[in-house]
Amino acid sequence: MKPSIPKGTRDFSPIETRRRYYIFIIIREVFEKYGYQPIETPALENLSTLAGKYGEEGDRLIFKIINSGDYLKEVREKNISLENPVAVTPYISEKALRYDLTVPFARYVVMHKNEIHFPFKRYQIQPVWRADRPQKSRYREFYQCDADVVGSPSLLNEVELIQMYDEVFTKLKLKNIEVKLNNRKILAGLAEVLNIPEKIVDFTIALDKLDKIGVDKVIEELQSKNIPQDAIDQIKPFLSYSFDNNTDTLNFLKELLQDSEVGKKGVEELEEIIGYFTKKQEKQLPLLRLKTAKLKIDITLARGLNYYTGAIMEVVCKDVAIGSLGGGGRYDDLTGIFGMPNLSGVGISFGADRIYDVLLDRNLFDESELITTEVLFTNLGEKEQVYALSLVQELRELGINVELYPDCGVKLKKQLDYANNKKIPKVIIIGEEEMKNYKIVLKNMITGEQESVLFSDVLANYKIEAY
Amino acid sequence: MKPSIPKGTRDFSPIETRRRYYIFIIIREVFEKYGYQPIETPALENLSTLAGKYGEEGDRLIFKIINSGDYLKEVREKNISLENPVAVTPYISEKALRYDLTVPFARYVVMHKNEIHFPFKRYQIQPVWRADRPQKSRYREFYQCDADVVGSPSLLNEVELIQMYDEVFTKLKLKNIEVKLNNRKILAGLAEVLNIPEKIVDFTIALDKLDKIGVDKVIEELQSKNIPQDAIDQIKPFLSYSFDNNTDTLNFLKELLQDSEVGKKGVEELEEIIGYFTKKQEKQLPLLRLKTAKLKIDITLARGLNYYTGAIMEVVCKDVAIGSLGGGGRYDDLTGIFGMPNLSGVGISFGADRIYDVLLDRNLFDESELITTEVLFTNLGEKEQVYALSLVQELRELGINVELYPDCGVKLKKQLDYANNKKIPKVIIIGEEEMKNYKIVLKNMITGEQESVLFSDVLANYKIEAY
Repeated sequence: MKPSIPKGTRDFSPIETRRRYYIFIIIREVFEKYGYQPIETPALENLSTLAGKYGEEGDRLIFKIINSGDYLKEVREKNISLENPVAVTPYISEKALRYDLTVPFARYVVMHKNEIHFPFKRYQIQPVWRADRPQKSRYREFYQCDADVVGSPSLLNEVELIQMYDEVFTKLKLKNIEVKLNNRKILAGLAEVLNIPEKIVDFTIALDKLDKIGVDKVIEELQSKNIPQDAIDQIKPFLSYSFDNNTDTLNFLKELLQDSEVGKKGVEELEEIIGYFTKKQEKQLPLLRLKTAKLKIDITLARGLNYYTGAIMEVVCKDVAIGSLGGGGRYDDLTGIFGMPNLSGVGISFGADRIYDVLLDRNLFDESELITTEVLFTNLGEKEQVYALSLVQELRELGINVELYPDCGVKLKKQLDYANNKKIPKVIIIGEEEMKNYKIVLKNMITGEQESVLFSDVLANYKIEAY
Repeated sequence: MKPSIPKGTRDFSPIETRRRYYIFIIIREVFEKYGYQPIETPALENLSTLAGKYGEEGDRLIFKIINSGDYLKEVREKNISLENPVAVTPYISEKALRYDLTVPFARYVVMHKNEIHFPFKRYQIQPVWRADRPQKSRYREFYQCDADVVGSPSLLNEVELIQMYDEVFTKLKLKNIEVKLNNRKILAGLAEVLNIPEKIVDFTIALDKLDKIGVDKVIEELQSKNIPQDAIDQIKPFLSYSFDNNTDTLNFLKELLQDSEVGKKGVEELEEIIGYFTKKQEKQLPLLRLKTAKLKIDITLARGLNYYTGAIMEVVCKDVAIGSLGGGGRYDDLTGIFGMPNLSGVGISFGADRIYDVLLDRNLFDESELITTEVLFTNLGEKEQVYALSLVQELRELGINVELYPDCGVKLKKQLDYANNKKIPKVIIIGEEEMKNYKIVLKNMITGEQESVLFSDVLANYKIEAY
């Protein structure tokens, strides 16, 4: 029997796991730096909490858990037809796997509203599961890293979230990061001026696909949704036209949307957010500086999720054609579905799996930083092992990560191979000669050099380093 | 509609999540210090990987996932009877949730045997799921923290694992920690001398319950398993008798098991392990020192899991009657079930949820260490907000975790309440007066004191602290 794992899931080896930790730790540090607090929610949610929140397609992609015990009792007793599996599911399943972190967060806020002090800034870094068809860079089990603030309408939150994107990608040393910005109110205004306000959902869904399917397919989709040809003709130029700078885009939008109240509000919000990062006059500095990210207004940015109502954003790395590395936006009624209306929120998400792929592609993981064992003691015999053990303990008490090769009587070459394979940079070799003189042989595994030194000198050096 | 979460699952609030991180980080640091490397495996495993590995009871407690698409097709076409749900499950479910970290690890080792360099020291900190009846301190979704080494028969591994228990509980500041030790070979020897070798499994399962159900119930269970009365009479004294020190226990065992080869081997192993931590002569120090944990041989310690073959251990905190905080042991053929026989391994596990409960009970979480926002800037108006933003940015560039209250026009009292609720120790208040003089009001939220100072002085202080 040859074991395997389910399609679309992955094992992570030590080096892969460490690279992932590295990404999570940086994201977490930045979240904490801006005052976001961690929460965790269970992987298992009631199916009723998730069902109907992600559209019909989403409902199909939720992993459902079979009830415990005689789970077919009701199906037998009520003689439920087995022809339609979707109709049978509610009888045999009450629980499901988390599909994203947003709906569980909304559920959390409503359930704990009496303990929460608003504005509530939370982050959450946990896996989610989707029964999607597995593809390159698309998995059935993957991590989301979300930061949201609920209970604060201030645009300062949007500003801060942009800074957080910038800071994370700066720390990750990724270049050519672009944060695309738009506002759902601008899209609503556009639908208004185009005279298709009732088609706003179809309109945004189609627009959202522009990056993936191109202008022609988007137009086909708009036609298939019965959006009038004259509206399509008016939209067409935006789809293919890209403005040189944000000021031009804003000016263009101001003119286009002058007759739409909601549209004007959207432009105003966009302008305010951008304003914090833009110099007011020729020789002035902007109030806030971004180190890595460039801001770019993109009026074709729509973001598929229907709950967004204000600012929307998406991050891409222009060096790699892999899609967005994160996205987010403002929503005004996320908790309404659970009976707590009118709570405004805004949040962003990092796509850790894609970030991983990009860092690997750009060679931006510093492997030497990811290795944690600093010294391996060889084990050349029973006496040597006993001798080594107390030295090992002394180094560990200084907080140094140390290993003693566990098996004695194994050839030195094999023990050195072990160090090489684990990329341990230093090996301490102890033989009979060394034991007599309180010495050790210190071998640098990177240069291959080795020298015979007093252990007390090694210890003294580490002590100096430690303080 | 009032939202809820499934029985036996939990939401973790910010403070709870931080306390949990604190535990995980300490465990991880110690694992790394001893050269264990992290891996991660998917939450979803093939049902065939898990089924049959945990006994019949275990099989029932595995959470199974309904297949995608028309999952009832085979049930309909083959006309499968719905009377026996256990027999239907394989037709509608191929995937299940991880039940522990040990079987997935065995699966991992076999699947990746060509990339792994043995001895392989790995740790894994991930949640597992069990459809158990929820009880106090027993959950359906909980974390396991495992460290194992496979491919090394050396008892030094057992020694190191004991040191790791000691180091974790020392760092967690828990007192009165006892590591109970036994060896499956001693139990096998006991079954041999008692003339019930074929009853070894029933014998160990019953023995394992001693802590929970007491001597009388264990004897009842032994009787119900048809263990002869004369054997029970011989065992009875051990069940209630506790030795004062490990030397007495070892001497007793040596005599008792002198006619059992396997039993003698078990005693020898136990003696060797204990020997590292025991002084050889009156005035000598032991080779290895434990800071917090006391080692205690406990010949009634059995550990329910059948795969153990050598040393077994369990950790308790004698201050709290909550059961074990961790346990482990040596197994000689874990990967055999997946077609890779004779790979010896040994490992330990930490019960993070119980450790959490004990630390809370003993008041051992240092809340001030868990708070991460250091300074809150108030937001008293639009001009003040702009002024504050650049100061906030300067502090953040020094790596300090800082928040700016996002909404302006909110009463100062409410903003201070926000800081209090998040336990932020310092608040910086900026009003018109301060802006004129490049000053700020620095309020210590713990003492209530406040003073007016130059922001440049605050910054200089932080710079000194940072270097």
